Amino acid sequence: MTQDRLTTTFSALADPTRRAILARLSLGEASVSELVQPFSISQPAISKHLKVLERAGLISRGREAQWRPCKLDAAALKSVADWLEPYRRLWEERFDRLDEHLRMMQSQSAETKSET
Amino acid sequence: MTQDRLTTTFSALADPTRRAILARLSLGEASVSELVQPFSISQPAISKHLKVLERAGLISRGREAQWRPCKLDAAALKSVADWLEPYRRLWEERFDRLDEHLRMMQSQSAETKSET
Repeated sequence: MTQDRLTTTFSALADPTRRAILARLSLGEASVSELVQPFSISQPAISKHLKVLERAGLISRGREAQWRPCKLDAAALKSVADWLEPYRRLWEERFDRLDEHLRMMQSQSAETKSET
Repeated sequence: MTQDRLTTTFSALADPTRRAILARLSLGEASVSELVQPFSISQPAISKHLKVLERAGLISRGREAQWRPCKLDAAALKSVADWLEPYRRLWEERFDRLDEHLRMMQSQSAETKSET
């Protein structure tokens, strides 16, 4: 089965270091050495993560030979948000029902107290 | 490194069949045999996918021995949406800039036409 784009994106996001790299890049572009500093892992390991993010279209790299800044590309994250959107009503309904249930429990508890 | 919850969720979503199962379950609960029908894969393969989805908290299974309906659990999808939210302004800004650029190109093209 050929890997579709969304599968590649989800796969790239299934790693806490890669998500932390994206969080750092959401503040602005950074070079590989700037990305290595906050993480206690080697530069080759960071470079490997960056390749996965780049293949998934989540980041892009500058063209300059020496200074190839990494930049977050938010369009791939938008495709995840678009995929999620039809499910939104399901979790909203779920939390509405939970709210309703809690309100009912509170009012029952208040009634019991006023009766005693 | 221990797998955090979000990593398990993204990992489970990184498969087109598992996403198709979630789409089917968003319409209502279904038994394993009902899930097998629309997919051209075996029941053991579907069961394996269901186990991955269940471990990620994306679905839950009924308790009845014979009829153990699968049900989508949207709370795990909400945690993905919550993780995405801080990035929303980035793709919205990006598409705003694209709109702005297209408007500018259109107005320049209209000016060029009116000059000729």
